[in-house]
Amino acid sequence: MQVTIQRREAPVPEPLEIEGQNRLCLEDLAVGRRFSSATHVIDAAQIKAFAGQFDPQPFHLDDETAKGTLFAGLAASGWHTAAITMRLLVESGLPLAGGIVGAGGEINWPKPTRPGDVLRVVSEIEQVTPSRSRPDRGTVRVRSETRNQRDEVVQVLIANLIVPRRATSQVPSELAAG
Amino acid sequence: MQVTIQRREAPVPEPLEIEGQNRLCLEDLAVGRRFSSATHVIDAAQIKAFAGQFDPQPFHLDDETAKGTLFAGLAASGWHTAAITMRLLVESGLPLAGGIVGAGGEINWPKPTRPGDVLRVVSEIEQVTPSRSRPDRGTVRVRSETRNQRDEVVQVLIANLIVPRRATSQVPSELAAG
Repeated sequence: MQVTIQRREAPVPEPLEIEGQNRLCLEDLAVGRRFSSATHVIDAAQIKAFAGQFDPQPFHLDDETAKGTLFAGLAASGWHTAAITMRLLVESGLPLAGGIVGAGGEINWPKPTRPGDVLRVVSEIEQVTPSRSRPDRGTVRVRSETRNQRDEVVQVLIANLIVPRRATSQVPSELAAG
Repeated sequence: MQVTIQRREAPVPEPLEIEGQNRLCLEDLAVGRRFSSATHVIDAAQIKAFAGQFDPQPFHLDDETAKGTLFAGLAASGWHTAAITMRLLVESGLPLAGGIVGAGGEINWPKPTRPGDVLRVVSEIEQVTPSRSRPDRGTVRVRSETRNQRDEVVQVLIANLIVPRRATSQVPSELAAG
């Protein structure tokens, strides 16, 4: 499966340089700050390939069979939508120093992702919490909405991420999170 | 990437027939009922392949570079652990009538998944709620722990799943969940 990342045609609210030197530390993140990713076009071949590997259920595997299921047509696995969301966040949607390292969060899929959908991720910082015990880092809670070309939300991810502080300008050296 | 499913050597607490006629409806699910999946062996090639497609960060892509990161060695993307967990649930871990259809939930990664880990999923029914408006279905809250060969928990997923009721013995025909 080839993952194709396309730039959005419409101007993004807050274009950001994604290169290392401009990535953001904890001090750069204020509650309410928003980010927008590039887009990814998902097609039936991608949906079936992911499902064949990780979520082999009829509504993710076969167009005809899917019509008779509760999805009423081929739909992507929610974990596929999550994986594409991660790719968009890593490559363009959330330029954090140290990368995107999550300890966990909440995930919901309000609508199915369909073949032909043009997905992008709009993120907003909800909380910024410096670590009490570790001066080199903190956590941010980020709400990331994955939206299709009709601006419908197909996934909401509220993630708790580890972010380094500028004071040390180093990636945290030890972490239990997966 | 080839996903290899291996049966557990140790006896599972509650072996279950996974074929359609023996799949479980809402009435079959009581709080506290437990299930155990087959195992999946993850290796470095799988970790890098998934990361290359969906989570291209150094700690998921390259053994040497990963040593200098906060993970102190190659670790699987959390979304890769989630995807493998789904495969194990679908194929052996949670034989629900109508398949495994989740509207969302909580996910946490207490420890990294490493190359060579032998993953399996242990699930427990936490809540069973018949739908008030739709007599043909209900929801169950399921806690699924993904554990490695040392019985360490690498992921906790608490998912809200849609399950058909036996009364109708039909898969719900309409659903907004993704």
